[in-house]
Parts: sequence; C-alpha cells; structure tokens
Amino acid sequence: MNSSNRISKLFGCTLPVVQGGMVWCSGWRLASAVSNAGGLGLLGAGSMHPETLREHIRRCRAATPHPFGVNVPLMYPQIEEIMQMIVDESVSIVFTSAGSPAKWTSWLKERGITVVHVVSSARFAQKAEEAGVDAIVAEGFEAGGHNGREETTTLCLLPAVRRATTLPLIAAGGIIGGESVLAAIALGADGVQLGTRFALTEESSADTEFKRYCLNLEEGDTKQLLDKLSPVRLVKGTFRNQVEEAEARGASVDEMRELLGKGRAKQGIFLGDLEKGELEIGQGASLLKGKEIQTVAEVMNDLKKEYEEALHSLKEKLS
Amino acid sequence: MNSSNRISKLFGCTLPVVQGGMVWCSGWRLASAVSNAGGLGLLGAGSMHPETLREHIRRCRAATPHPFGVNVPLMYPQIEEIMQMIVDESVSIVFTSAGSPAKWTSWLKERGITVVHVVSSARFAQKAEEAGVDAIVAEGFEAGGHNGREETTTLCLLPAVRRATTLPLIAAGGIIGGESVLAAIALGADGVQLGTRFALTEESSADTEFKRYCLNLEEGDTKQLLDKLSPVRLVKGTFRNQVEEAEARGASVDEMRELLGKGRAKQGIFLGDLEKGELEIGQGASLLKGKEIQTVAEVMNDLKKEYEEALHSLKEKLS
Repeated sequence: MNSSNRISKLFGCTLPVVQGGMVWCSGWRLASAVSNAGGLGLLGAGSMHPETLREHIRRCRAATPHPFGVNVPLMYPQIEEIMQMIVDESVSIVFTSAGSPAKWTSWLKERGITVVHVVSSARFAQKAEEAGVDAIVAEGFEAGGHNGREETTTLCLLPAVRRATTLPLIAAGGIIGGESVLAAIALGADGVQLGTRFALTEESSADTEFKRYCLNLEEGDTKQLLDKLSPVRLVKGTFRNQVEEAEARGASVDEMRELLGKGRAKQGIFLGDLEKGELEIGQGASLLKGKEIQTVAEVMNDLKKEYEEALHSLKEKLS
Repeated sequence: MNSSNRISKLFGCTLPVVQGGMVWCSGWRLASAVSNAGGLGLLGAGSMHPETLREHIRRCRAATPHPFGVNVPLMYPQIEEIMQMIVDESVSIVFTSAGSPAKWTSWLKERGITVVHVVSSARFAQKAEEAGVDAIVAEGFEAGGHNGREETTTLCLLPAVRRATTLPLIAAGGIIGGESVLAAIALGADGVQLGTRFALTEESSADTEFKRYCLNLEEGDTKQLLDKLSPVRLVKGTFRNQVEEAEARGASVDEMRELLGKGRAKQGIFLGDLEKGELEIGQGASLLKGKEIQTVAEVMNDLKKEYEEALHSLKEKLS
C-alpha cells in the first residue's frame, strides 16, 4: 500500500488503489477525487458518447494534477472514434474490458499509452499478456455489472492469473474493506480495483436513491443473472424479479432481450428508478450495510485504516 | 498454522487444517490420514448408513491416535439414531451442516461433544452462535456440492461472519493452495477446511476415474446449478448438460427432481460413472490441473510449503 509498489509506480500514484471505470458512476468528479486522494481514478467510457467523454477528460484534468485513466469496453459502438479522441486528448492510461485486447493494445501502446486489460480467467490473462498490455485486472464473480461466464471468484481467480503471468496484477471483485485488500495481496495481486465502494460515494454520478438502496442490502441481495444474454450481477428489485421469473420459465434469448430493453442501467443507476431500472452493484455491497454516503477522501482514509488493522491482526495471529 | 492457534487448540491437533466431511470421499482412510498428518479428519456421515458410519468410526480410531470428527448433515433421515450412535461411539467432535443447529447443538454439548456448524451467511453464523456451537465453518460459493442460496463467495463471506461472531472461525470454499490459506487468515479466519484437495487424494473413497477427471478441469468447468431443488456445484459432463438444458427451457421442480433421480452422486463420485453420475467438486479444482493423485501426507507437506512461500512473498511485498 505505498508508492514503491509495482502498480503505484506504473501509474505514478501514491496508493495501488484503482477506482473501477463504471457505467453511470465514474465521471470526472469521481475519477478526479480518487486521483486527488492518492489512487488512480478512471472515467467510465461505457456510458458516455465520445463528446461526453471528451468533456469529462477535460474537466478531470482541470480537477486534478494527478494521473487518471479511461476505461473503454471494447464492444463500444464507435470504438475507432473514441480511441482516437482519447489519444487526441492525451490520456496516458487506458483500461480495456469486455472484448479482445488483440486489436487495440498495440495501437494504444504505439501512441505512448499505458494499457491495462480486465480479465475473468487465466486464459484471457495470457492472451492479454500476448497482446502486450502493461498490467492486468483480474475481476472475479463478486463484481457488480457484467462478468465472465466462468463464474470464477476472486479467491480462485487470482492464484490462477498469478501463475499465468508475471505482469503487474490488480485484483477486482469483492474488494470492499481493508482485509480484502490484504487478502488480494496474499493471493498474488500487486494492487486492487474497487468498484462498489466508490460507486456509492458522494462524488459518484449515480443517483442518491440508488446509493442509499445499495447501502442497505443484505447478504444474498445481488445475483448474477441474464446468462442467456451476457451475465450481469443485478440487485434485488422489481426488474430483477421479472428477470428471474422469465429465466425460471425458460424464456428465450429474444424474450430476454426484449425484457431488458434499452437504457435500463441508466434508468436505475443514473436516474434512480429503483422499480424499472437495472440496478448493478457488487456482491460485497452488503458489507457496507448501514454506512452513510461518504466522500472519496473518507473512503480512502477508512480503507487505509482498515488495511492497517487487518495487517496488524494478521501479524498478531502469525506471531 | 501452528498448534497454539485457536482452531488447533479446540480440536487438539497440530495444524488448523480441517478436511471436509464429504459424501462418498470422507471415509476412515481419508479422515485418519489427515489426522495422522496433523490436521483434523472428518468422516462424512451424509453418504453412510448409521451402521456403516459406526464401522468407519471404529476403523478410524484404530488407524489414528489423534482426534477426528464426524460431519452430520442435519437433514439426515435417521438423525436421532445416528446422533445417538455417535455419542455411544465416544466421538468427541461433530460438525453439523445443511440445517438448523438449534435442536442438536445443546444435545451434543450436554454429552461433552465439541460442536461446529457450517454456515453460508453471517445471519446463519449468528444463529449458530446462539445455539451454542464452539466454532463456525463459513463456506463460500466456491465449494463443491451443496451450497447456500445467497451465492456469497468466501472473500465476501469471511469478513461478514468475522463481524457477526467472535467464535473460532474456519474458512471453507475455494481453499486450495497455501496462498488461499493465508488469504483466509487475512480475512479473519482462524483455520481452514479443505474439501476438493483432500477429495482427490489417494486415501479418498472417491473412484480413481473421478479423481483423474477432476484433476484435469479447466477454469469454468464447475457451475452451481439445480437452484429449483437445492443449489449444488456440479462438474461439466453428460449429466450436467442435461441439467443445464432442462433449466434453460424452464423445467419444473418435479421434472428436475425426476431428472436428478436417486443415488447419482454415489454413481458419479464413488462408482466413477462419469456419464450418468452427479459429479461434485469445488471451483478451485482447476488450480490443481495436471497434478497426480497425491497421498494426504504429500498434500499436507505441499500445503505447508505453499503457505510458507505465500507468507514469504507477502512479507517481501510489504517490506
């Protein structure tokens, strides 16, 4: 948890803590706050038009003197346009996800950009290394939103990825408190990426109602569903009930696609429609139950404190 | 990982390593080998008639001077009979699972038996503490066989259970190599329970073909299914394909029950029928890919070595 760490060095930040580039949460306010607090903030391009992202990049740069990055899902519709814009705006760090890194990694690296790819398996980690990425995020089944079909949890995924590559490794999925940061390092990670915890901060673009709802979840309140389309971890609620009911009766791919419709994640996360919206958050949200909506600076301070406590407790146990 | 640990002390063994009491794997050969290697061996009552279990208890006692225990699923059909027999045979440690610990915990404790209950949530951990258990196993979604409906992974479960109770805590689900043992301790566990790794040893009662098959699994080859009956982690194969096909078309509970039939786990695990059998193993099996079938002593030695390596590597990273 310091600046001499491989991940801190790679990104030029104080702490090896990355904030996930999440749809409808990760705008310039969140990313700049995380970078200002010593971590690496990421803008989430997945829910932005190219020109919206350009504005967020410029505002983020104005709001922090520290490095920040952009997360680009590789199935982004105007991928050529957005990648060119990212280069034009002199972004220095790009995280790619949800697609093959083969095409874009070398293109970005030729333009001097540090490239990190998000994977859900050791096999994909090897492919990312072959593509020439600088670091890997290994994201387990616990994570909110879209996940791998393998359903491999962070506990099983990290040792597998650690064996598959010597690249700097960032753990994601279920990283909530300081003890999970320590566990991730024990499992072979060099740094961590937190989505859920930052999605529910003051600076996140998510609607306040969504944040409050997610800060009151119990164990078992999120579930990975929609396997017939693309597996995604959903929060309990009206829309998820419809999904579960449809899946239980064996609804077809077309029916599921119609049920999902368009813009549901925006409706739920950004507009706070807890009834009709698609609500995405990580499984670890229930570990935050009862917390207030905190600022990023408060979360970072708490995380450091929790980590030190976990380390102290581990040392005591091992002495 | 030593005898002054809370779990080692509670059971009177050298290492805080428990071998899961698994159906069709955990007979006297496996349990006594684990106890002889310094851990706590458990007989798995779930797949034994009361008189079969009595024989295994007697043979286990003859095969090791060290403590061992019995795992009893609380939905066991002749539960009164088997509990009385366990007392009559002077078993000193009982792990209960798959049911409410309210009824049997005090009955066992009045008879001088150390009682441990297996839970899949912090809520159940609290109930187990209220029932008076001596320790808790928190078993995550990664585990083979029957699991909780919450689908909470070990990474998210352990911190939640650690907050809910101060009782000695044993981590299970995805505990495969030494780095996962260290991670479990970092997450608040005092000891670990390994199922998968011991199920695939020489001394396990499982069929050799089953063991070889499970030692060649890839990432994503196990999946939690059969939610309409009781969620269970299944290995890829003919029977699982049938389950997935039935679930995708929305088969009813009755249809699923008929498809499952009777005795499929025995057929798969014990008799080695990889076609028609129900094959159960933990998600972490793919981390063992390519290993030979080892003896329990070899596994214990490797585990200690891996753990020391993980600890050394963690200390280096934190220095």
